[in-house]
Amino acid sequence: MAGETEIFCGEVVSIGTEILIGNITDTNASFIATRLPALGIGNYFISAVGDNMARCVDVLQRALGRSDIIFTTGGLGPTEDDLTREAIAKVLGETMEVQPQLEKELRTWFAGRGFPMPERNIKQATLIRSAKAIPNPMGTAPGWWVEKDGKTIISMPGVPREMFRMFQVEVAPRLKEKLAARRAFIASRTIKTFGMSEAGLDERLGDLLHSLNPTIGVYARPDGIQARISALGRDEKEARALITPMEEKATSLLTPHIWGYDDDTLEEIVRRLFTERGMTLATMESCTGGLLGDTLTNVPGSSKYYKGGFISYSTEMKVSLGVPAEIVEKNGVISGECAVAMAQAARERLGASVGVGITGVAGPDPQEGKPVGTVFIGIADVQGTKARETSWRQSRLDIKSRAVVVALVDLREWVLGRYPR
Amino acid sequence: MAGETEIFCGEVVSIGTEILIGNITDTNASFIATRLPALGIGNYFISAVGDNMARCVDVLQRALGRSDIIFTTGGLGPTEDDLTREAIAKVLGETMEVQPQLEKELRTWFAGRGFPMPERNIKQATLIRSAKAIPNPMGTAPGWWVEKDGKTIISMPGVPREMFRMFQVEVAPRLKEKLAARRAFIASRTIKTFGMSEAGLDERLGDLLHSLNPTIGVYARPDGIQARISALGRDEKEARALITPMEEKATSLLTPHIWGYDDDTLEEIVRRLFTERGMTLATMESCTGGLLGDTLTNVPGSSKYYKGGFISYSTEMKVSLGVPAEIVEKNGVISGECAVAMAQAARERLGASVGVGITGVAGPDPQEGKPVGTVFIGIADVQGTKARETSWRQSRLDIKSRAVVVALVDLREWVLGRYPR
Repeated sequence: MAGETEIFCGEVVSIGTEILIGNITDTNASFIATRLPALGIGNYFISAVGDNMARCVDVLQRALGRSDIIFTTGGLGPTEDDLTREAIAKVLGETMEVQPQLEKELRTWFAGRGFPMPERNIKQATLIRSAKAIPNPMGTAPGWWVEKDGKTIISMPGVPREMFRMFQVEVAPRLKEKLAARRAFIASRTIKTFGMSEAGLDERLGDLLHSLNPTIGVYARPDGIQARISALGRDEKEARALITPMEEKATSLLTPHIWGYDDDTLEEIVRRLFTERGMTLATMESCTGGLLGDTLTNVPGSSKYYKGGFISYSTEMKVSLGVPAEIVEKNGVISGECAVAMAQAARERLGASVGVGITGVAGPDPQEGKPVGTVFIGIADVQGTKARETSWRQSRLDIKSRAVVVALVDLREWVLGRYPR
Repeated sequence: MAGETEIFCGEVVSIGTEILIGNITDTNASFIATRLPALGIGNYFISAVGDNMARCVDVLQRALGRSDIIFTTGGLGPTEDDLTREAIAKVLGETMEVQPQLEKELRTWFAGRGFPMPERNIKQATLIRSAKAIPNPMGTAPGWWVEKDGKTIISMPGVPREMFRMFQVEVAPRLKEKLAARRAFIASRTIKTFGMSEAGLDERLGDLLHSLNPTIGVYARPDGIQARISALGRDEKEARALITPMEEKATSLLTPHIWGYDDDTLEEIVRRLFTERGMTLATMESCTGGLLGDTLTNVPGSSKYYKGGFISYSTEMKVSLGVPAEIVEKNGVISGECAVAMAQAARERLGASVGVGITGVAGPDPQEGKPVGTVFIGIADVQGTKARETSWRQSRLDIKSRAVVVALVDLREWVLGRYPR
């Protein structure tokens, strides 16, 4: 990438047998990975290894050989299985020693909870000569910040909420300071689209895909296809300046499929649009079983515009809520007409300005002769209605989540007045 | 572990820059990890590496040096970035050659979709001498099954649904056959509990935790604390025989907190119990916003017993559905009384035998003087009612998902008649 800047080589090592047997998915590694670019650290490797001394030592040795900064998570607990400290001490040829101050803090932690410290916890109060403790007010395991021979090892607990806090409050600020002199910053910008295939987006971006700094990559996600622009500069300003012209070109190529940027979510955009306009929403869901309501209410402040909804899993319930029986008889429950009638009924029942209805076949069996994956989404307000048919031949859960994404995309467009009424 | 058996050493390598920048969490690796024990393969390392030839080659070389079977995912696409094939060829010193039969299949795949094959896709029709193709009817990238010098590399696509299918339909059966002669089988049994802390469960299991074959481990999960027993035997029968006595001991120590085993889910157990007894269910959700309905309907066959529900996000809607205004005035919306009244109203409205109501404070602000995380769950049938208060000081999404777990646990107990009525 850019010539004058120097990029730090980072690596993430997750320690714990639970990861290797698939009992947990390693979200710690992706958490760290997303935060490294802004610190000017490239992440080149992620490794997971079990609670086994020889293999831990092997992985750490390898990491020290190829990376500047190694982030470890897990293995800082009090049990015999927890051997991250021991493995680091072994790799560096140093000895763990109990630190009186850390021991005092640990005993205070236990005392505050009304019981004496189990003696095996004492190893959480140890350090080696090259290590400093990283505070962990959320648990008993302080982290280790190790510096030796130009390499840095940062060891954090495996419990995600302890690790997230330690990274954000303790580790990131110190790293920023430490790396400031290196003058490297990786900035990125994600453009979120819906309605194009990955290949279609690739094709539109054309030659932009060959750019080296900034780079642009295309990724498929549950809420559509994303284009992610990354640039390396000597500081944030330089990196962002590299991104801007690429972002403008990409935006002009991908409009009108763009619905958001970076951390935007569809549910937050829908909340903002409805709230800004003083509009309210009601839902009636059949095949999605409440997932749309759940998604809408994941956003704080949703109670300001979301009036509520109905999970009308049976035809009887739909009709009792105001879906005309004639519509069901004539078109079936799996139809655009029924979806629109559900939207109307929800809106009228709850006195909302806009209603949305979802009906479809989540499987495993076809219904009314319609194949699994057929979903109709209806939207209605006082001025008009709109129905969309969508089809997604996947698992039950994928069909539900896809239907909700489409409903949110349609609600956004509806509020923006993109549909003729 | 057991002396006479020989365990295969497995390793998972995920290839793709998206993982290293945290753009996706690597669910492929955990999918494979969970499936290896039953094949008699131990999983000792998981690595992720970006779309970079030198680093890919480095990681594969390392894996070949220490493991018997290497599973790779990702990097089998048609673009220049997709270099898993090239990296394997390089590591093994072999040359990629287009296979006429694979090319024909690939062109047929594109023709069936009505457009000609882009020429860059041709590399998806290549093999090296040591590789055989693994069919992938869901996409354009066949896998590679490589055997050389006693080592096996199995390369699968990165798209999860293509990978999952390929592993289950193509890879697992062939591996089972291949490894049958080695006479190693790792069996496991997971006991799922609710209502005990991780430490509490640890304490109850006591000395069992020191057993070496079988082993027992304790893990915290969103739906409670799990104890996982694993045993290594020469075959499934021997491995299972090792597990049985440990399972019996653990069961007697953990009853009555146990709600299920292995792949059991609370929503499936609730479905089964309701269906077996010919009972029906209706829901009224406030703070969970539809997540309970969504969870119940994730299970095929839920329409047989789940009548539907109401997402009564406003007090107005609760009252209009039959929650007595006096109850709200006297106790507030965030109360056990209101939760029970919601359960009653849902049940009566939809003519269901059991109703469940959830009301609480998902945050970010306290409500009616109750702190964020306070949730009341009410259950009602024709014979009686029951309310439980629960409190979970976490994020909005955690509070919602915890409330749904508690509601499902309570529904199970209710149907089993564990509550005096």
